[in-house]
Amino acid sequence: MTEVFSARLAGDAVELIDQTLLPDRCDIVSCRDDETLAEAIASLRVRGAPAIGIAAAFGIAAAAARASAAGDGVASAARRSAATLRPVRPTAVNLAWACDRMVDRLDGLQPHSDIVAALVEEAETIADEDRDACAAMGALGADLLRALRGGPLSVLTHCNTGALCTAGIGTAFGVARTLHERGELGRLWIDETRPLLQGARLTAWEAANLEIPHAVLVDAAAASLFQRGDVDAVIVGADRIAINGDVANKIGTYSLAVLAAHHGVPFVVVAPTSTIDPGTPSGAAIEVEQRRPDEVRRVRGVVVAPETSPAHNPAFDVTPAELVTAIVTERGIARPSADPGSVADLVHSP
Amino acid sequence: MTEVFSARLAGDAVELIDQTLLPDRCDIVSCRDDETLAEAIASLRVRGAPAIGIAAAFGIAAAAARASAAGDGVASAARRSAATLRPVRPTAVNLAWACDRMVDRLDGLQPHSDIVAALVEEAETIADEDRDACAAMGALGADLLRALRGGPLSVLTHCNTGALCTAGIGTAFGVARTLHERGELGRLWIDETRPLLQGARLTAWEAANLEIPHAVLVDAAAASLFQRGDVDAVIVGADRIAINGDVANKIGTYSLAVLAAHHGVPFVVVAPTSTIDPGTPSGAAIEVEQRRPDEVRRVRGVVVAPETSPAHNPAFDVTPAELVTAIVTERGIARPSADPGSVADLVHSP
Repeated sequence: MTEVFSARLAGDAVELIDQTLLPDRCDIVSCRDDETLAEAIASLRVRGAPAIGIAAAFGIAAAAARASAAGDGVASAARRSAATLRPVRPTAVNLAWACDRMVDRLDGLQPHSDIVAALVEEAETIADEDRDACAAMGALGADLLRALRGGPLSVLTHCNTGALCTAGIGTAFGVARTLHERGELGRLWIDETRPLLQGARLTAWEAANLEIPHAVLVDAAAASLFQRGDVDAVIVGADRIAINGDVANKIGTYSLAVLAAHHGVPFVVVAPTSTIDPGTPSGAAIEVEQRRPDEVRRVRGVVVAPETSPAHNPAFDVTPAELVTAIVTERGIARPSADPGSVADLVHSP
Repeated sequence: MTEVFSARLAGDAVELIDQTLLPDRCDIVSCRDDETLAEAIASLRVRGAPAIGIAAAFGIAAAAARASAAGDGVASAARRSAATLRPVRPTAVNLAWACDRMVDRLDGLQPHSDIVAALVEEAETIADEDRDACAAMGALGADLLRALRGGPLSVLTHCNTGALCTAGIGTAFGVARTLHERGELGRLWIDETRPLLQGARLTAWEAANLEIPHAVLVDAAAASLFQRGDVDAVIVGADRIAINGDVANKIGTYSLAVLAAHHGVPFVVVAPTSTIDPGTPSGAAIEVEQRRPDEVRRVRGVVVAPETSPAHNPAFDVTPAELVTAIVTERGIARPSADPGSVADLVHSP
């Protein structure tokens, strides 16, 4: 079994699995300066909101460690690192949040403190908190799904939400993994997730590595599984959750929500409470970014459509709260379709 | 503008556009013996039920012409050609049907007839009938859609149903083309249609060639277009239609039917009456073939999933009649969701 991780601190470097090369190659990239790590984040060698925040936190700690070893200014090296990494992916909330948290820790230190030790501790704490949240969501989500029916469950997922994009077992994938460890998973159906194929390339690779029974399918084949009665629940992650329970997530998620409702199958979102944005009243406030047409016209560099054909390539879609059976967080479960106020209650509970 | 065709007779050879190389290359293959044509049909250089029937009919006529020029037995060459081509794709009803029709013509000839002329005429008649059916469906379908609303229509399609798979303007694509020629098409949305990408590779190429306003999208992005109100109708072809109005078609079709129903958008099937099988009472009688897992694990030869991961790869799905707003044929329009007996009426009408 290959050790699967998103980012880790190795002395004064940050190590990443280069996710752009998976599944054919599993190369570990060692980032020994801010620019290498910034490039890795920009080019999606490490991806997934929690993972890039953690990678940046480790990067700032590593920059401090290198400065200390070289006899340079440690605090200024850490600040320079944070300033370099923070703007690399502007839409990824966790990246800015993790950089700010590291700088806050630095700002709060007493004179003559061990800056390197403090920053390493802070980065490890960020990772530990994410790992704990994943474990809590995995257990809560598996309990929820087990309540659906007695036998082994067939569960459908989309995109990648596993160890490659968190510091722990993942969000939606973590629920499937927990079911598997409890002997309650029949099969994990994995949408390939065009255009960037995170399901086929990353989730299937994680499932194969953990020997979780699974099968990959093209996104358009999911409907036929519902029709055959072969899906007991849909589990997906979230990019952002509005306070009314509308969920923005990878393109294709809304399609699964409509299919789940049509076939009477629970549609379950698994995401930490940090994904819930109290400043977003509903999905209508979320602007859907269009990505490059070449992501559609090419697959891993190979031409699949005329170069002159326009492409419609939204990065994500928004699933309305009324189609969301449950949102599983580390703090508890909201049920937007049954109880429209339950997401707000979860955020505002002590 | 490139001339787009599926198969044509050129002297004693059959010419095909090699569809496996589109859209990057448009090579014409000249088949001068039965084996070359059989290989072209087997390896999908020519595809689409009407097109492979027409290619085989031309192939039999060409075999007769070559035998005549060489002073060999003309009738026996034609029979040999039919026997070689007929079994190449067993599930394609039109292939066996076209071969049988050519042999029937041969069997019915008077002694001393011009066999080559008769077989060329029969093959051209098969192609002409298909061309006329396409034109009739295009006009009927465009009339039907125009009745939906006043302004230009945005229409979503799946797979390839154009000139590359018929002798005419196509089935569903022919409706879009007719709307375009009438100035009534806003935009044609084209699902890429994984796993074999007939939408991105072939339909987009046909649309670009005809300067039809279009955009390609990944299959999972269709739902977000419905949500935005950007789809006025779905138009698809059919592999087989049961007598109760259930429709078997390319995997992904059923997903569009559910989405169309959820959003109150008409779901229209365009197919010749030869696609309706009076021997199939309902979709439950249609066995869904599983194709090779490597179609999912690779895209045009490039690895996109672990080699060890199983893949679920159904060739088609079955859309129940209650989700089918209309079936447009060359003989008229059936409305399965509103009138369950209308498909049978169409087949049995004089």
